[in-house]
Amino acid sequence: MSAKSKGINGERELIRSFWSLGWAAIRTAGSGSSHYPSPDIVAGKLGRRLAIECKITAENKKYFPLDEINQLVYFAQHFGAEPFVAVKFPKKKWFFFTIDDLKQTTNSFVISQDDCEIKGIQIEELLN
Amino acid sequence: MSAKSKGINGERELIRSFWSLGWAAIRTAGSGSSHYPSPDIVAGKLGRRLAIECKITAENKKYFPLDEINQLVYFAQHFGAEPFVAVKFPKKKWFFFTIDDLKQTTNSFVISQDDCEIKGIQIEELLN
Repeated sequence: MSAKSKGINGERELIRSFWSLGWAAIRTAGSGSSHYPSPDIVAGKLGRRLAIECKITAENKKYFPLDEINQLVYFAQHFGAEPFVAVKFPKKKWFFFTIDDLKQTTNSFVISQDDCEIKGIQIEELLN
Repeated sequence: MSAKSKGINGERELIRSFWSLGWAAIRTAGSGSSHYPSPDIVAGKLGRRLAIECKITAENKKYFPLDEINQLVYFAQHFGAEPFVAVKFPKKKWFFFTIDDLKQTTNSFVISQDDCEIKGIQIEELLN
């Protein structure tokens, strides 16, 4: 399966989880190629909205270009949502991180597999 | 241009209008084919969120299947958004309608071109 297909399947898995937990969630079209900031997933329930950038990785670290995170934050601020990053490491469940959880390097943000247990939260906790 | 391409171009035109008016807006992926309710566009600014089904038509009436509108309302209620229908008739600008503005027939909702001036609002008024 291509990286793109894996990514889309991963997003669909999250969409299912959101709806099964009573949240409305959508995947955005052309995320990453749109002229305008566009997170991978937008989810909402009553007074709360989440804008989420999702990544599946086969490595034990996941890097996010600065611009990707800046656009996520920009979108979230304008839309009125909380920005989150969701990462799926090998043999792990999806873990969610706030922007403050990301470590900044010279030209990217990074999350490592070890961060999952320390800083990451799973979807049930995120939506609580 | 295919009907699908026209539809996507129309949605992109609306996305540009939202951003130019200070609103964050996204197109959803797989709208119409997704297993879950999924409007064409979701837009937001601060405390307000809109879920929008968009249609371009070459006729002077536009029909919406009951199920399409029911899913729009279902999504909007769960997400926490106001449901709207946006329709572009020939040689007209985009007009926005609430669900109450739609006339219900046996198995669909309908908006006619004449409704634009009577019930429809344009984007500047919608976002005011």
